[in-house]
Order: sequence, then C-alpha cells, then structure tokens
Amino acid sequence: MEPNKGLVSALFLFFLLNATIASPTPKPHIKPRPPPHHPCRHLTFYFHDIIFNGKNSKNATAAIVGSPPWGNRTILAGQSHFGNIVVFDDPITLDNNLHSAPVGRAQGFYIYDRKDIFTAWLGFSFVFNSTQHRGSINFAGADPLMNKTRDVSVIGGTGDFFMTRGVATLETDAFEGEVYFRLRVDIKLYECW
Amino acid sequence: MEPNKGLVSALFLFFLLNATIASPTPKPHIKPRPPPHHPCRHLTFYFHDIIFNGKNSKNATAAIVGSPPWGNRTILAGQSHFGNIVVFDDPITLDNNLHSAPVGRAQGFYIYDRKDIFTAWLGFSFVFNSTQHRGSINFAGADPLMNKTRDVSVIGGTGDFFMTRGVATLETDAFEGEVYFRLRVDIKLYECW
Amino acid sequence: MEPNKGLVSALFLFFLLNATIASPTPKPHIKPRPPPHHPCRHLTFYFHDIIFNGKNSKNATAAIVGSPPWGNRTILAGQSHFGNIVVFDDPITLDNNLHSAPVGRAQGFYIYDRKDIFTAWLGFSFVFNSTQHRGSINFAGADPLMNKTRDVSVIGGTGDFFMTRGVATLETDAFEGEVYFRLRVDIKLYECW
Repeated sequence: MEPNKGLVSALFLFFLLNATIASPTPKPHIKPRPPPHHPCRHLTFYFHDIIFNGKNSKNATAAIVGSPPWGNRTILAGQSHFGNIVVFDDPITLDNNLHSAPVGRAQGFYIYDRKDIFTAWLGFSFVFNSTQHRGSINFAGADPLMNKTRDVSVIGGTGDFFMTRGVATLETDAFEGEVYFRLRVDIKLYECW
Repeated sequence: MEPNKGLVSALFLFFLLNATIASPTPKPHIKPRPPPHHPCRHLTFYFHDIIFNGKNSKNATAAIVGSPPWGNRTILAGQSHFGNIVVFDDPITLDNNLHSAPVGRAQGFYIYDRKDIFTAWLGFSFVFNSTQHRGSINFAGADPLMNKTRDVSVIGGTGDFFMTRGVATLETDAFEGEVYFRLRVDIKLYECW
Repeated sequence: MEPNKGLVSALFLFFLLNATIASPTPKPHIKPRPPPHHPCRHLTFYFHDIIFNGKNSKNATAAIVGSPPWGNRTILAGQSHFGNIVVFDDPITLDNNLHSAPVGRAQGFYIYDRKDIFTAWLGFSFVFNSTQHRGSINFAGADPLMNKTRDVSVIGGTGDFFMTRGVATLETDAFEGEVYFRLRVDIKLYECW
C-alpha cells in the first residue's frame, strides 16, 4: 500500500498547492491578518516643536504660515486654531530631553482642521543621516490632539526604510503654553524590505 | 507503475514549488495582477463641505487659509482659485442628506493647483469613532474637479482600517455656488489586514 | 524502494510547504528583501517649475501661497524660504526642454521647512492623460534640495498606475535665479498590479 500512500500524499499536496497558490479562479486580493500583528521593526523617538511667537526667532523650530481670515501668523488663531498651517523642522531625540543630541529631523507641516476641538492633519517625514539610520520615514494622517494617543500612517520610506509601511502612535509627552510641544512617537513598521 | 507515479507527482510538485516559491535567482519583485481586481472591502459615503465666506461662521465646515498674491481668504481667488488652500472638517453621512446623522468626519485640506481649470490636490482622512467603524482612512492625490469621477489613492489607515490601501473614486454629487459642495466617495480597499 | 522514495519526497515537500506557507505559529510579518531590488517599472521624466514673481503671470506655473510672518507671497522669504508654501501645476516632459510637448502635469505643493538650508516637504501627483499613460502617480516626502539626488516615496497611484508603490529620485537639473527650476525624476516602482 505504500506506493498508494505516496500517491495519496502527493495528490493531497497537489490539491493543497492548488488551493493555496495556483488557484486559477479570480479571488479577492486579501492580505491575511497575522494574529496578532508583529512589527518587523519597532522604533521610539521624541520630537520637539517650538513655534515662532514673534520673540523666539533664535530657538523656534516651527512657524505659522497660513491662518484663517480671522487669524494672523504670529499667534495661533481662536476657535481651536482652526485653519492655522504650521511648518516645522524639529530635532528628533532618543529621550525626552530637548537638549539631547538630535538623531534626525522631523520635517513637514500640520494644519489645525477643527473649530470646536484641537485636531490637526499631519504630513511629515523623519529624516535620518547618521551612522545608525540613513534615509527617511514618511507619515500622514489625522491627529486628534486631545486624545492621549493618536495613530497616523507610515506611508513610505527611503534608504534604510525603503518602501516601509506601518502605523505610528503619537503621544503629547509635554507642552508649555502654546509654544513648546514634545511628542513621543512609537513607530511600528509591518513592511520591511 | 504506481510507485513511479508517486515519484513523478512528487517531482512535478517539487519543480512547481521550486519555480513558484523557492526560486534562487533574483527576479523583479512583481505583484501578480489578479484579473480582475476584487476589493476586500467596499464602502460608500458622502461628505459635505461648507466654505466660510465671511457670513456663515456658524455653519461653515471649511475655510480658505492660503491664497495667491492676487487673492484673499474670504473669497476663492480668480484664475480657477489657483493657489487657494482650504482646510476642512466635514461631516460624513451614509446618504446624500447634509442633515443625516454623521458617521464620521472628513478632515484635511485641498489646494487649488491649476490656473486654467478647477483642479485640486487633496490630503485628508476619514475619521470614524462609532460602533460601526473605529479608526481612520488616509487619502492623497490629484482631484481634477471638472471630471465626473476622479480617483485618489488610499495611502494607509489605522484601527479598523489598519494598514489598508486602495483607490477612492470621488464624484461631485451637488454644489451650491462656491459655498456648498457634496462629494460622493466610493472607497475600494485592496489590502485588508 | 521506489514507493518509499515517493513517500519521502512527498513528506519532504509537505514539510517544505508547512514551513514556507502554512506555518500555524504567528510570526513577524516580514517582506523578503529580494537581493537586489528590481523595479517592475522604471520611468524618467522632467518637470518645469516657474514661480510667479509679480511679473511673469503668463508663464508662471507656480505661486507662493503661504509665507512666514516675516515674508510675503511675491518673493521667496529669507532664512532659506522657511515657511513658504508653493503650489504648482508644472508641465512634464520626456527630455530636458521646457518647450517639448508635455506628456502630463506635475501638480501639488511644496513647503520650505528649514531655516538654515534649502529643504522642502513635497506632496504632489503626476497626472497623465495621453495614449501612452493614463492615470496618476502620487508622491510624498522630504526634499533636501542641496543634495544632488533626493528620494521621495511613491505612495500610490490610479489608472495605469493602480495601487503602485516605489521610490522616486529627484535631481535639480537646472535653475535660473529663484524663478525657474527643472527637476529630473527617476521613478522606480516596486509594486505593480
């Protein structure tokens, strides 16, 4: 019977293969959901945003460059800053100390986009050029600032982060008035090439 | 002959496997194109954009926050609004009624980017926080407004829409002057985790 | 012995299959890195950016629509143009001649985001509507302008470029003062559907 077993096993494999890989019928393109998700790369950073307020030109890392009709570009506007566009070039550090040696720059913009609560839309990059990391990670997404943690999308990357994708969790780690914000970013990458 | 058949089947499978999966030679990384594409998730929504015009402060869901040198921030500029940046926080509804219960918010911005015809560049998110959907879908792309339908990219997502990708088809469902726009969005997701 | 060989081969295949495909234990979701990367599509274009300076209204393809508090919208601001938002609708050509027949339009925006060196954040699309290409490619990322080449992410596409991803390398091919910039773009797509 052993020959038959061999044949049976081979046939079983053939059907398995057929079902799993070589299916000739068009099927929905569904990525399997690994239970649970395991990032292929996990990074944590802090970045520090000091908004220009007319007096801190030397230290400022960000500036208001757009405002609603009722605002200006030196003070964040009323109505939850709705309509303010802020451009930034912030130092990235490994710990929560603004004065630690930066390991990269967080560069991009956010737009306050809600009148009744602080919420922004973010488009930015982490740019690294050190011995440890070289390349960039690109982010986009909604940032409902009043939530303790907020998830934005990692939409791509270059260099060491070639073509990566994932989710970044933002947390406001500290703030001083409306001038200094420190964000903790937990980056989980699920596509690593 | 049966033993040989078993061997032949096994060898056939081995070559199949080898050719399909375990090829040792570097090859172009090409995703197979399933014929035709079947979305793993298909959603349709409406969202409603009411641009601030100096008089509708209470109802407005959007405001002009950037303008070309020849424009201002209360009236969309001449030359097809070229250079106007509009920030929005629009209600999302399941049907085409502005007054239906919103199921989420469409938040982000568009920039009119052409002088001779209405065309914009969009960066925005659908933000859901209901029993039905929790999480966000992030979009980016060109929106040639005069075309009946326009495709933009779904570049990522969070929560229920973790890491999703796809294409969203926008259609101007209704408009009133240059103040109210209603968009129908047909979201086809092809990567579902 | 041949039957056993058949069985052994089949079992070997079974274990191979099991290890490669049907692993029941959760594992990190890691995309294999093909050595080296081969794009599934490789395209090269030029695009031409003529910034409005108050005098070139007829030829300008771009305009300053946001500026820092210390700037205006007719002249790029001091401090490396930090805070200037520029919207563009630039012709795309196959060669480096501004007057060649355009094959598409590059539409979107950039924001100068650094005070001490020319650096920008880009969000834009290549929009094609010709016999050769129909659809759009969407880009986002940091553009450190002083580097000879800069990589940004291809974050999605529509039409002929449905759901594509990859990396685009920008190179400043020529510039005249602060009005005309010509960029060479080398687009390498690694996900083609």
